[in-house]
Amino acid sequence: MTIIRKLLEYLDEDMPFGDVTSAVIIPDVSAEAEIISKAEGIIAGLEESSLLFGHLGLTVRFLKQDGDPVKPGDLVMTVSGSAGNILTAERTCLNIISRMSAIATKTDRIASFVRSANPNVRIAATRKTAPGLRYFDKKAVVTGGGDPHRDSLSDGFLIKDNHLALCPLKEAILKAKKYSAYKKIEVEVEKPDNVLIAAETGADILLLDNMTPEDVILSSEMLNDAGLRKNVILEVSGGINPENIESYAVCDIDIISIGALTHTVECFDVSLNIRGGQKSA
Amino acid sequence: MTIIRKLLEYLDEDMPFGDVTSAVIIPDVSAEAEIISKAEGIIAGLEESSLLFGHLGLTVRFLKQDGDPVKPGDLVMTVSGSAGNILTAERTCLNIISRMSAIATKTDRIASFVRSANPNVRIAATRKTAPGLRYFDKKAVVTGGGDPHRDSLSDGFLIKDNHLALCPLKEAILKAKKYSAYKKIEVEVEKPDNVLIAAETGADILLLDNMTPEDVILSSEMLNDAGLRKNVILEVSGGINPENIESYAVCDIDIISIGALTHTVECFDVSLNIRGGQKSA
Amino acid sequence: MTIIRKLLEYLDEDMPFGDVTSAVIIPDVSAEAEIISKAEGIIAGLEESSLLFGHLGLTVRFLKQDGDPVKPGDLVMTVSGSAGNILTAERTCLNIISRMSAIATKTDRIASFVRSANPNVRIAATRKTAPGLRYFDKKAVVTGGGDPHRDSLSDGFLIKDNHLALCPLKEAILKAKKYSAYKKIEVEVEKPDNVLIAAETGADILLLDNMTPEDVILSSEMLNDAGLRKNVILEVSGGINPENIESYAVCDIDIISIGALTHTVECFDVSLNIRGGQKSA
Amino acid sequence: MTIIRKLLEYLDEDMPFGDVTSAVIIPDVSAEAEIISKAEGIIAGLEESSLLFGHLGLTVRFLKQDGDPVKPGDLVMTVSGSAGNILTAERTCLNIISRMSAIATKTDRIASFVRSANPNVRIAATRKTAPGLRYFDKKAVVTGGGDPHRDSLSDGFLIKDNHLALCPLKEAILKAKKYSAYKKIEVEVEKPDNVLIAAETGADILLLDNMTPEDVILSSEMLNDAGLRKNVILEVSGGINPENIESYAVCDIDIISIGALTHTVECFDVSLNIRGGQKSA
Amino acid sequence: MTIIRKLLEYLDEDMPFGDVTSAVIIPDVSAEAEIISKAEGIIAGLEESSLLFGHLGLTVRFLKQDGDPVKPGDLVMTVSGSAGNILTAERTCLNIISRMSAIATKTDRIASFVRSANPNVRIAATRKTAPGLRYFDKKAVVTGGGDPHRDSLSDGFLIKDNHLALCPLKEAILKAKKYSAYKKIEVEVEKPDNVLIAAETGADILLLDNMTPEDVILSSEMLNDAGLRKNVILEVSGGINPENIESYAVCDIDIISIGALTHTVECFDVSLNIRGGQKSA
Amino acid sequence: MTIIRKLLEYLDEDMPFGDVTSAVIIPDVSAEAEIISKAEGIIAGLEESSLLFGHLGLTVRFLKQDGDPVKPGDLVMTVSGSAGNILTAERTCLNIISRMSAIATKTDRIASFVRSANPNVRIAATRKTAPGLRYFDKKAVVTGGGDPHRDSLSDGFLIKDNHLALCPLKEAILKAKKYSAYKKIEVEVEKPDNVLIAAETGADILLLDNMTPEDVILSSEMLNDAGLRKNVILEVSGGINPENIESYAVCDIDIISIGALTHTVECFDVSLNIRGGQKSA
Repeated sequence: MTIIRKLLEYLDEDMPFGDVTSAVIIPDVSAEAEIISKAEGIIAGLEESSLLFGHLGLTVRFLKQDGDPVKPGDLVMTVSGSAGNILTAERTCLNIISRMSAIATKTDRIASFVRSANPNVRIAATRKTAPGLRYFDKKAVVTGGGDPHRDSLSDGFLIKDNHLALCPLKEAILKAKKYSAYKKIEVEVEKPDNVLIAAETGADILLLDNMTPEDVILSSEMLNDAGLRKNVILEVSGGINPENIESYAVCDIDIISIGALTHTVECFDVSLNIRGGQKSA
Repeated sequence: MTIIRKLLEYLDEDMPFGDVTSAVIIPDVSAEAEIISKAEGIIAGLEESSLLFGHLGLTVRFLKQDGDPVKPGDLVMTVSGSAGNILTAERTCLNIISRMSAIATKTDRIASFVRSANPNVRIAATRKTAPGLRYFDKKAVVTGGGDPHRDSLSDGFLIKDNHLALCPLKEAILKAKKYSAYKKIEVEVEKPDNVLIAAETGADILLLDNMTPEDVILSSEMLNDAGLRKNVILEVSGGINPENIESYAVCDIDIISIGALTHTVECFDVSLNIRGGQKSA
Repeated sequence: MTIIRKLLEYLDEDMPFGDVTSAVIIPDVSAEAEIISKAEGIIAGLEESSLLFGHLGLTVRFLKQDGDPVKPGDLVMTVSGSAGNILTAERTCLNIISRMSAIATKTDRIASFVRSANPNVRIAATRKTAPGLRYFDKKAVVTGGGDPHRDSLSDGFLIKDNHLALCPLKEAILKAKKYSAYKKIEVEVEKPDNVLIAAETGADILLLDNMTPEDVILSSEMLNDAGLRKNVILEVSGGINPENIESYAVCDIDIISIGALTHTVECFDVSLNIRGGQKSA
Repeated sequence: MTIIRKLLEYLDEDMPFGDVTSAVIIPDVSAEAEIISKAEGIIAGLEESSLLFGHLGLTVRFLKQDGDPVKPGDLVMTVSGSAGNILTAERTCLNIISRMSAIATKTDRIASFVRSANPNVRIAATRKTAPGLRYFDKKAVVTGGGDPHRDSLSDGFLIKDNHLALCPLKEAILKAKKYSAYKKIEVEVEKPDNVLIAAETGADILLLDNMTPEDVILSSEMLNDAGLRKNVILEVSGGINPENIESYAVCDIDIISIGALTHTVECFDVSLNIRGGQKSA
Repeated sequence: MTIIRKLLEYLDEDMPFGDVTSAVIIPDVSAEAEIISKAEGIIAGLEESSLLFGHLGLTVRFLKQDGDPVKPGDLVMTVSGSAGNILTAERTCLNIISRMSAIATKTDRIASFVRSANPNVRIAATRKTAPGLRYFDKKAVVTGGGDPHRDSLSDGFLIKDNHLALCPLKEAILKAKKYSAYKKIEVEVEKPDNVLIAAETGADILLLDNMTPEDVILSSEMLNDAGLRKNVILEVSGGINPENIESYAVCDIDIISIGALTHTVECFDVSLNIRGGQKSA
Repeated sequence: MTIIRKLLEYLDEDMPFGDVTSAVIIPDVSAEAEIISKAEGIIAGLEESSLLFGHLGLTVRFLKQDGDPVKPGDLVMTVSGSAGNILTAERTCLNIISRMSAIATKTDRIASFVRSANPNVRIAATRKTAPGLRYFDKKAVVTGGGDPHRDSLSDGFLIKDNHLALCPLKEAILKAKKYSAYKKIEVEVEKPDNVLIAAETGADILLLDNMTPEDVILSSEMLNDAGLRKNVILEVSGGINPENIESYAVCDIDIISIGALTHTVECFDVSLNIRGGQKSA
């Protein structure tokens, strides 16, 4: 998607009839503002903010780049030009930076922890993103070092329990394979029994959903014994939390997918401060 | 806004080229599904989900209404019709319900706590919402018993520190008053000194930002002494957390506004399960 | 709203398949054009026209600014660049300038007259604007020195007779007050009897609708006697015309709102003339 | 254009965050409303209003049809269903009916007058419509018995003085003829001298712009003498007003086009009244 | 229409979540690319491609202009800047150039052939264009030397057999004439009998549909005999193919319209090659 | 995507200001129409047409389903209701059916031929679709029995010669693998030498581009010898035509992708005929 269109929609959302305060109070002042991180983590959303500020005729200077580690007090960006335009876009940009940095930071922390437990295991996002924000949420996961997983229902097959309630496993995989060679086929498996059937029938990825670590180990062993382990990617998901994540990470798996990367977002605090200002020419 | 347009955008986001899994695996099956709460709190987003399911030709039955308290295991809604359409809209609807219920639940908990400390004090949201989701985030705050605060930059005046860095306080208020009699004028005040000036000049709402409880008390006393307390609404914001909220709530104030109602959202868990299913006629 | 999107929609409306005359007759000519006022009043819409001309790669020079008084023959703006693009946008820009200047001029005339009768009384617009043109119509009212009043149904409460046919006055105001502290509450009152109830219950603005000047005077006196006059803004509306406006203006009121500012618009004549022209390089 | 999309944009314009008054004051009431003409003329915009009310789930009954003559007090339409939805759409629908009826009424009056002076002469609109409202303004002209003229710059050729400042008359017409056989070619002529050249070169319509009645007569006589009168349509425009229109109407012309049909619109008064109402089931 | 909006939609269609290959493989490389014709004919779509490349910040240099003849191996355009952006827009631009050049080339070939058979006869397109591509398809026909015919159902009247099944011929033409003087009236005639009626009643264009060359000749003779031939444009359509086109072209007609100009499009081969490339600064 | 939105855009394209012929000639007639195939092949686009007709309040009856074989004269669908609405949507629907059926028919013919030569080989489309019609073009390929291939640049990696001009093969594949486990990685290979490197580095699909059948055979043998053949899908593309397709089909490959399925479309003739008609109630 051409991102600027989304960004302008967000700005429009925040000003259906203009920014009355800036328009009335400071109609003809120019100023410089600085955006400062007030938290520690991985900064993200700067490129998007820069696009929006730039669209309003403002000049942006980057002190940090998306993906850089920051700590409280770090200056990440300056913006100069019409003070009214800076303040009009302030909240939209801060909301974007704040959400994307929060996601990038969380992803980075979990990914680092998991990597230290097992360097072969990666963290992935899910489709549990805020409605309308899929692109931004996924991009922030990538910035934080995670795998974005499917972008949408159109990208690849993910045959879930609800599909399997209506179509037998083997038939479902065969239908998907017949449809196209260009989309990966992932299958949700809740019991080790189905692991072999799915792998033999040609699934590319097995989503071991809500399994205990013991069942995960059993599943990978069954695949190893059948010589099918290297044919499939093993993704573990469901009920993963800080307490049990290590017990999954040490298994012979490839990916742990975590809805909380995007469905549970704690604001990454960041602020914009005007410094200096003068009547516009 | 005509909400269905927003909802369809969210659905489109999740399927730029259709829901390949449902289209290929279960092209002609009808089924019934139930949506079940897996958390405790205030449910929200059911009306929005119903609009989207309905647009796809599905039949919805409400077991709970938006705003109802729910607990894990509670059936909140059933959906019946094309199984493919149910699963196509599943994630979009669950993402909406989950986010809105999370916000409603958090608002309800904090509002109840504050009300028990001081029945005259209300909780309000801010504009720190997810980009594009302003309407839904604010509606969820209302569902949880909070005040939505300004919807956008167009609604009312909020003269903040960044404006005051560029225009003197009194001049700013007078400009706003001259502009229109139909928008409330709120002014951010960081020091008690400015409280009287703002109230005398005609501000409708004073936003006591990042003040200590002591300064908040001092501010309301100064207003009382000047006979201006009843002319203004006192809103406290900034740095409020579970530890200190009570010390603010007991002050002579009207509103505590909390960005975290919408900027820090923990997923409210809810799931959709297919039960039954048959070939469509 | 990002205005350029609206302006491009207007241009698209006028050329679903291009401007065939300019494209065929003058495909590669550059020229300069001047926009000349042919009427007396307050010019408006220049900024919008400049945005649209600029989007088409044309260079604009302002001889007048929005809000300036102009008289017949005054040069207000020059535009130079592709002659085809100038003529393609000509009608769209003239329609905007013409409508906005008409509204600004009418507002200015009535506001001046009322101000001379009573310097405390202001003129306000209503929501009787041309569909889709709310932003532009309201902006023109402000340019002419009027109060824009509510932008939309989302801005503030306006409890009208049709609401009161379905909900008692006092209950209606209390519901509104409970909903939010950030939106003004206006109540339509057709009889002096309800003036006190509305003011006592907490309405911010009383809309004295279709009252005689005598009833308006009675209403303000009742409020004065009850010590409530300074708590409310008094707006008079309905049936105001050139003959009777002075008799309302001299009352102890704050605002006269006039639908005709935007619902009855006489074209403000303005024209664009090409001068000079040459083959483009 | 699919009209409902335009209508929903107008509704969205009036409620970027919902209709707060109706939502809060009368959330669950159903009612019936009647729309009553308060002026005399030709009613229009009922079909458009009906589409919008219908989209909101309301039931509409027509007492009048678009194009019917109405007088003050005439009931034109009833609407029943959710009271909140009725009041939410009230202003948008009334604005549409009011503008379209005003245009239809004015067109009808002038067309009748001109017809009585010369039954061969018709009234036509111009492109001086409100931005975004071209379709509705032109439809209202047709409802009032006028000719809509060009819809847009794409419909047909209209070679105006500004084009002729950059391209000789004969060359311009020949270019247009060469481009397509499917678009009428109209040429603006300010002096009788050019009338013959334009007609001989193949123009379909001559726009006699700002000519005196004498020059108009001279032009038609020259065409008659050259045997070209029946080859062209003669349109008169510019400076036509109630005082001089008859002197033009009696000439040997086909059409008088009048910008004021759409650029100068006096509101046609119409109102909506709730009658009855009850708690929704 | 403002073309860039359409072009961005096409680009968005091709990248709902970005161009993952370019973003990941060549995130920070700049390069130059050349677009080379691999076929012989008339090139078109360069202006549109240039708009899209330009929107992405790329620099375009034209070696050929739209409408120029090209042969295999001809360099038509170079593009330089971000390699990722070049490759992101590559397919969209090539699809546009390829389709438009194919249409322009086919039109040019048939128009030349017909012109050599009868210099008075032109080729015209129909509305059998690819959905959404009307503007581009028609523009390519013009580039190839054809007449675009009606752009849409709004441009002019075309009374077809399906209309005539529901309304008598004469009544239909009279209704159209009464509606507006600004739209041409074309009537589909399948038998010579109706030719005179249509011409006498005032049709501007007669569409002789699916007639044999003999009936076409008969039709023009009947019109000549009645002195009406010069009053109407004669368009022949239906069942025209390379074998019989000459036998129609030599008749006394004005236009042959051919759906195949746009409904049967053979790709015009064109390719983009990167040459050189370096790390971006 | 919610398809109806696309379909309404196509309809709007064809009537920016309404369907003037139907509106004026047959304003209040209802009728039944039948859509008849005039060609032999696989019908497609009926579901899309039905959605659009249904949106206009028309009743549709299917005599054939998408994917059914049809021959000249076969009745495929009837539509009944407002005659004006039927004729308004006629061309849009016929354009859709015609294009989609043409693509489905061509795909079916080539797929059948290839299958008879080698049952293991499938036909696939490319991204050489008409701009804006990706979804419909791909769906028609599926209807004709082909593989849709990538929907867009977002779906999967396709590392082409232009990428490899800027990044070494092995590095490119490794970057793609590191980015995500959920997208297939396809690599364009022009010489057999690179086949092994690509397969060993982890490409999922090898696109043997513009290779001779001999080089294709050599490539598959090299993969077989290295024990890597079953790890990769072999796609052949470029320069495939009716003369040489069999020589490729008999190779040990999986897919032949053919741009001409969608970039070279010969209209599939289909027509709509009104039968019967009467004044609407």
